[in-house]
Amino acid sequence: MRYALLIEYDGRGFGGWQRQKNAPSVQEKLEDALSDLFGAPTPTVGSGRTDAGVHALGQVAHFDAETDIPLFKIKFALNARLPEEIRIKEVYKTAPGFHAIDSVKKKTYLYRLYVSEVASPLRSGFYTRVSPPLDIELMRRAADKLVGEHDFRAFSSTGSDAKTSVRTIYRIDIVENKDEIFIEIEGNGFLYNMVRIISGTLVAVAKGKIPLENIDIMLESGDRRLGGKTFPAGGLVLKSVDYGDDGAISTKIP
Amino acid sequence: MRYALLIEYDGRGFGGWQRQKNAPSVQEKLEDALSDLFGAPTPTVGSGRTDAGVHALGQVAHFDAETDIPLFKIKFALNARLPEEIRIKEVYKTAPGFHAIDSVKKKTYLYRLYVSEVASPLRSGFYTRVSPPLDIELMRRAADKLVGEHDFRAFSSTGSDAKTSVRTIYRIDIVENKDEIFIEIEGNGFLYNMVRIISGTLVAVAKGKIPLENIDIMLESGDRRLGGKTFPAGGLVLKSVDYGDDGAISTKIP
Repeated sequence: MRYALLIEYDGRGFGGWQRQKNAPSVQEKLEDALSDLFGAPTPTVGSGRTDAGVHALGQVAHFDAETDIPLFKIKFALNARLPEEIRIKEVYKTAPGFHAIDSVKKKTYLYRLYVSEVASPLRSGFYTRVSPPLDIELMRRAADKLVGEHDFRAFSSTGSDAKTSVRTIYRIDIVENKDEIFIEIEGNGFLYNMVRIISGTLVAVAKGKIPLENIDIMLESGDRRLGGKTFPAGGLVLKSVDYGDDGAISTKIP
Repeated sequence: MRYALLIEYDGRGFGGWQRQKNAPSVQEKLEDALSDLFGAPTPTVGSGRTDAGVHALGQVAHFDAETDIPLFKIKFALNARLPEEIRIKEVYKTAPGFHAIDSVKKKTYLYRLYVSEVASPLRSGFYTRVSPPLDIELMRRAADKLVGEHDFRAFSSTGSDAKTSVRTIYRIDIVENKDEIFIEIEGNGFLYNMVRIISGTLVAVAKGKIPLENIDIMLESGDRRLGGKTFPAGGLVLKSVDYGDDGAISTKIP
């Protein structure tokens, strides 16, 4: 039987989602908890990696298990075994053939910024600070250029092992709330560091550091150097993974 | 010359605002930074204590110094000397006779809640979780009963050394945003644990655990036992201290 988990985590203390030798990972903690609960090694497949320091409100992972434990008890038992930086929000039985990577229809990331001359201790590690002023309308115009199907190789770091760098962005919303700006990006998939480079580039445009036209040239030429900085991991949150109505589960958070 | 500081801090690592023997405090770190900068012991007076784990977006403290350093350089120099959990947001020269405690007109606290069956790692230490359902309209009716001048001794912990337990609450707003609820309380002063007890009591009413009428009886009788729990420190934020138009500074955050 295949199960899926909806997972929230504070990424600050982890080397990222993926199990690795030299740092604790979310996957390792999760597999330890599952294996302890079921009394058998229980590998997991996550919807995608998140890097060290990146957070998740709605990561999804699947695993296989033979068990009679009801779903709500699995949730309770896993949370009792996990460090408090990781919480299981839901447990689902999936349709046959569900796969946490292969069944993905859409993913939504948040990049969280606040605008201030001074660092905000209450947001340290969870938001990225940018100094004023920012031209938000210019930021929105830059974002609009990225929506659609494009070759995003200028918006990715080397080291990506993806077969193609063509992706579709369905939506980029720039949401302002007092001194905070959330960049919310929905797409069918993301290259390595893509959201962090997009965020750094949108802010660079909004601050007048690079011209709006660079976005078009980057999409045409694939030249990473025309963009802004790769923004820090702490501002990035995997908000949700959507498996569509025909999929087994939808993790869209209301 | 008297100066005032507008200070944000993450209270998690401190025994509170006030200097104390057995734990690091915000005041100690601040006085260390000031004394190092000015080359002379520089005591501070904060607008009030905050307890261990309580945060501040707008704490105010004053100090006296003889210096020619411009205000923006004092801010920069202090932030360079402070741990990143504490940031100076503004430095003011005050009017003669300004006093961080005695000149206070109003203080505003936020108590930050989120409603969920499961703990949220991204909000741990900064918000308090309450489980659904909550009757928000009932919560607002309970809050309305507290607005005005009352004897709030039923809403304070023993150990308060205040001369009188009469205080005036000008406003309590219950602000909902998705799964979050902020209780914003503005008053002329607050007793020991008053905001945490009010928050625990408003939630107990909203959950049907104590009747609405208990609020009236608490205000009349002073009986603490009729209220809800003293809610955890981590949900509490000192938002701003207002010294009025005739005072030297106003720290009201827009």
